[in-house]
Amino acid sequence: MNKEIVLHNYSQVWSEIIIDQLVKMGVQHFFCCPGMRNAPLLRAANNHNVAHIYQGFDERSQSYRALGFIKSSGLPTVLICTSGTAVANFLPAVIEAQKTMLPLIVISADRPGELNCVDANQTINQIEVLRDYTKAFWHLSEPQANYSLKSLAGQLCHSISQATSKPCGPIHLNVPLREPLDLTSETIDQQTYKDAVCILDQRHEQIVFENTRETLSHEQLENIITKIAKAKSPLVIFAPLSRKESHQITHIKKFLQKYKGNYYCDVETGGKFDLGAETGLIPSLDHPEVLHELTMSKPDLVIHIGHRLTSKHYYSFLSDIQSDSEIIQVTHSPFHQDPGFSFQKRIECDPITFIKQINEVMSSVTTPKSNLTSKWASLIKKKEDIIEEGPLSYAYVSKKSIETLSNLKQAFIGNSTFIRSFDSYASFKGQQKSINIFASRGASGIEGHLATALGIYEGSPSPTALFLGDISLIHDFGSLFNLADKEIPLLIVVANNNGGGIFNLLPIAKDTKTLPLLTTPHTYQFTKTAASLGIDSIQIQTKQEFENEIKKWNKSPKLKFIEVIIDDDNNKKVYELLKTVKL
Amino acid sequence: MNKEIVLHNYSQVWSEIIIDQLVKMGVQHFFCCPGMRNAPLLRAANNHNVAHIYQGFDERSQSYRALGFIKSSGLPTVLICTSGTAVANFLPAVIEAQKTMLPLIVISADRPGELNCVDANQTINQIEVLRDYTKAFWHLSEPQANYSLKSLAGQLCHSISQATSKPCGPIHLNVPLREPLDLTSETIDQQTYKDAVCILDQRHEQIVFENTRETLSHEQLENIITKIAKAKSPLVIFAPLSRKESHQITHIKKFLQKYKGNYYCDVETGGKFDLGAETGLIPSLDHPEVLHELTMSKPDLVIHIGHRLTSKHYYSFLSDIQSDSEIIQVTHSPFHQDPGFSFQKRIECDPITFIKQINEVMSSVTTPKSNLTSKWASLIKKKEDIIEEGPLSYAYVSKKSIETLSNLKQAFIGNSTFIRSFDSYASFKGQQKSINIFASRGASGIEGHLATALGIYEGSPSPTALFLGDISLIHDFGSLFNLADKEIPLLIVVANNNGGGIFNLLPIAKDTKTLPLLTTPHTYQFTKTAASLGIDSIQIQTKQEFENEIKKWNKSPKLKFIEVIIDDDNNKKVYELLKTVKL
Repeated sequence: MNKEIVLHNYSQVWSEIIIDQLVKMGVQHFFCCPGMRNAPLLRAANNHNVAHIYQGFDERSQSYRALGFIKSSGLPTVLICTSGTAVANFLPAVIEAQKTMLPLIVISADRPGELNCVDANQTINQIEVLRDYTKAFWHLSEPQANYSLKSLAGQLCHSISQATSKPCGPIHLNVPLREPLDLTSETIDQQTYKDAVCILDQRHEQIVFENTRETLSHEQLENIITKIAKAKSPLVIFAPLSRKESHQITHIKKFLQKYKGNYYCDVETGGKFDLGAETGLIPSLDHPEVLHELTMSKPDLVIHIGHRLTSKHYYSFLSDIQSDSEIIQVTHSPFHQDPGFSFQKRIECDPITFIKQINEVMSSVTTPKSNLTSKWASLIKKKEDIIEEGPLSYAYVSKKSIETLSNLKQAFIGNSTFIRSFDSYASFKGQQKSINIFASRGASGIEGHLATALGIYEGSPSPTALFLGDISLIHDFGSLFNLADKEIPLLIVVANNNGGGIFNLLPIAKDTKTLPLLTTPHTYQFTKTAASLGIDSIQIQTKQEFENEIKKWNKSPKLKFIEVIIDDDNNKKVYELLKTVKL
Repeated sequence: MNKEIVLHNYSQVWSEIIIDQLVKMGVQHFFCCPGMRNAPLLRAANNHNVAHIYQGFDERSQSYRALGFIKSSGLPTVLICTSGTAVANFLPAVIEAQKTMLPLIVISADRPGELNCVDANQTINQIEVLRDYTKAFWHLSEPQANYSLKSLAGQLCHSISQATSKPCGPIHLNVPLREPLDLTSETIDQQTYKDAVCILDQRHEQIVFENTRETLSHEQLENIITKIAKAKSPLVIFAPLSRKESHQITHIKKFLQKYKGNYYCDVETGGKFDLGAETGLIPSLDHPEVLHELTMSKPDLVIHIGHRLTSKHYYSFLSDIQSDSEIIQVTHSPFHQDPGFSFQKRIECDPITFIKQINEVMSSVTTPKSNLTSKWASLIKKKEDIIEEGPLSYAYVSKKSIETLSNLKQAFIGNSTFIRSFDSYASFKGQQKSINIFASRGASGIEGHLATALGIYEGSPSPTALFLGDISLIHDFGSLFNLADKEIPLLIVVANNNGGGIFNLLPIAKDTKTLPLLTTPHTYQFTKTAASLGIDSIQIQTKQEFENEIKKWNKSPKLKFIEVIIDDDNNKKVYELLKTVKL
């Protein structure tokens, strides 16, 4: 960034960020078409000291010119045009770029939303105008307050990488810009201004997207291992993977033979119930004191292996430490995955392959041993006591199930309260429970849980448990007809707290008039209905009853429906008590 | 609106406007699905004293329930869901609604842009998730400052009418909402707050979309004629039509036999050069004193017949008078057309049919005679003198061409400076010039003008003229190869001012470093090149030369290329002088 740039208005901020990210990603050649709506983009490119500008008259002509430039130079290249039919003139060249796999980045300026759809002059529907002929299309939001520029920058990096990652191809960014388009000043909110200056001034001149997909090169491997070895306080995150690998946990265990620092396992990895706090396993990323302790330990390297964590607070933790830490993501997802806007490097590689390769090469490297294990153990112990001593709660159901169901091979955990309850539970001593944990955390929908659990059993026939809430059950009640007549070792545990209790924990609970529309309170109980279909069903009201029932199931697993009546107020009390536990 | 509603934050403002517009459009039944992201929408519906709420658990179930409600009641009905997979559960019912043409309005809450595309939890790409199975999809912009709520309200009306206009069908509105989703207060910018209160408190309880398409009913006709007869200061706008009707101007003239009030003809209607100021024809809607005079005359009724005007300032004029005036639009476009966010009633009817029907019924109605005709005449006279006495300018080319080319039957006028120059010229005395005027004002692109003019001649072989700027010529230079060998009476007038002069008139001209990227200055001249293709070509530097050449062409029309060299500074001086003319 040219240090003398003053940011006058939102359209300028957006344009500077866009051009800056392009240049940081190694894109330096800009074929510019004239116009007015695109003036902020042209200005930003023209003022950037590293950008090369190629000016011309006609959009169609400029697009073929850019195509030729890519053909001869092999460099990713940008085409910028104004709003209206301008971008439509690019279509023939974009089609050619797609067929010949050229990294062409089309940026069209657009009117803001309030001028679209009202037939303002020179305004057309630019959404996906080049549709089937681009690798990706991104319609940015209007320049505005409260829109994280870190998110914008991350989205840009990802979309640019879509053009340049193999097989290359054209992409289209549509950029609505609002007047003023010249340098007229308007008030920019403080956070936006601060973030813009921070991004534009960033020391790291190049953003790293290591496109690999298959395996890491020797050089990449060495690089990662050196980073781990040199880190004073490394942190490794084992996040969920998109599919279940049979020996996933084995590879993690092998890694832990050499790596002794802090690490975390998401509930879906199963590691929480298999490994113990004494191995450096962080018990929870949603407990305020754990996060505080981790922040104090000043992690200088975070390696996040896999997809999104179930933990909510992890992402704000990353955001807090990002200025002093190198945060690396390892993923093979085609999507941009950065809900905390904090990853600094993305290595595109199958996560299991990544761990395997590291295990093969990382011979005698010893990393600093976590000095927090005794604290983790004490925390878990205190939490276990609260859960055992308190009334029947989600936490109790999770803990007792993991402890008791020694014959359980796999479990599907429903969304909302249940998945968080299992994610918060970790055993102090590794119980060597190799339970395959399944969930639907891609989009975290509430529906289809019964059917998914049945499919999991059918895909891998072995004792299976399903944990879900009452509202989830109602969403998929019809699936009971697929289950009822089957002789399968499936345990269905429904926690019934008469509605979507999760919202009762949020500030919106004060809006008593609206709350019932969010929580859908009801007075239904489900045991009789399940029994009417011929399913062995029972309703549970106490901790002892629950323990007895799952013990029975563990001895001879078969189709069983257990409805656990949970008093929402009691449950809330347990949660609030758990939060206050000190390290 | 419930008068006691206090607006706490942007998400609430957006939600209140959305629910309010639905109710005003006669949509009062809301089938609600639970969630958190949709809380502001549920709250607004729940608090609306006219809305009926139907609460339920499962999105799929609720969607079929709404379907049943429409089947039995025939009423348009809303389905509201939260973000994520929720909306995907509607797909089966939406498919059924499409096949059976039911007015189902799906509203899905969504995360704001900064949380999309980063893999935030429960966030999916909701854009067109119901795609081929809806009549229309609208993705709203995030709640934000500087977004006109009048535009939002208008867009909502239009989209709701798409569900309810025949053949009915489902539509999908996707509504990104940002936290706070409860009633936490944030600062709302003054204009947004003011507009929201104004829209929500509006006296007119019902928004009128008169869906007709074919012809007006007797009742509709009587209604309109009564409005015209009762208006103290009516204003009729003849806007461009989507296709050329051969007797369009005849119908306008017939209308003017009975209507004596102020009226305006867009350049594309041809009326400017056929009718005179003495008939009440307003000479320009882009002259500050004309707009002032019109505002002073307090128009209490505006009937806008046809599509978007070329005039820029007309739409802010409408906005200024809208609180004291009834502003009616007559159109048969499938699109929402309201760039000034000011139309209060939309009659969907073919504009020519509308004028014909009015002419048939409006027998002896006499409207108040415009008392501004002498002022209009004096203004035109003063302008004509300035144009005649000044240096060679766009205005001179427009005026002289209209006056001189008596044998011209049709003309295509290029965009940017030329169309505005012709639009600003109106003759004092009707010259009875029935020239069919063509333009590309749908999206007002700069490209393809030579080819369009050739096609116009081929579609209607008669003496044709094309007026375009140098940058437009460069965009379509290749089309000369389609023209050069044809013996056709086509006059090509290129005004060459060495680049996109229009930007030199705007404040951005001060940004001298960026300006050349917008205006693409050059030093090319085109006469020799055109001549090299065998086209009879000449370059013109003076007013006299221009007049001589077009006189020659008028005597024997044939293929001719005239390049008029216009000094941009001189042209600017003429424009500035024209603006200062007093009434």
